Amino acid sequence: MSTQETTILVGKKPTTSYVIATVMSFNAGAKKVILKARGGAIARAVSTAVMIRDKFLPNQVRISDIKLLTDRVTGQGGKERSVAAIEIVLERA
Amino acid sequence: MSTQETTILVGKKPTTSYVIATVMSFNAGAKKVILKARGGAIARAVSTAVMIRDKFLPNQVRISDIKLLTDRVTGQGGKERSVAAIEIVLERA
Repeated sequence: MSTQETTILVGKKPTTSYVIATVMSFNAGAKKVILKARGGAIARAVSTAVMIRDKFLPNQVRISDIKLLTDRVTGQGGKERSVAAIEIVLERA
Repeated sequence: MSTQETTILVGKKPTTSYVIATVMSFNAGAKKVILKARGGAIARAVSTAVMIRDKFLPNQVRISDIKLLTDRVTGQGGKERSVAAIEIVLERA
């Protein structure tokens, strides 16, 4: 039942929720966990990543890639606007 | 009067303030602009970086490095706590 790669969408929940989800994914056998976030949630994705690396799984997990993107989203009224997004790849060392 | 490298601390102002500061630094001759932010301001630093790369200076500036860090800060009452931080390096292509 183990998955090699898990993607976690970081949204409006407290950072600890995403930290727990990430730790659980690694404990379930994931080799790679990808944190994705947009807009204001970007700070939470970064906090999650550094807490995992520096506090919860030190020397076990490293940040192997970080991508910054522009996403197009359709807001209320069908207007398209662009929003910044981040993808952080955490990998078992 | 040109500086090779500029560091911009991204805080609580609107993202556009930091976009303008970055564009002005490059126009003043900077080869490298480093955006630094902590906590909730991380999202603004990421937004600034992607707006520069994708919208304001496309094909002229690239993101050459991104570091995620844990900073120790002393809060009210002298208590130490850790906060996530980011450093984004923008470089003239």
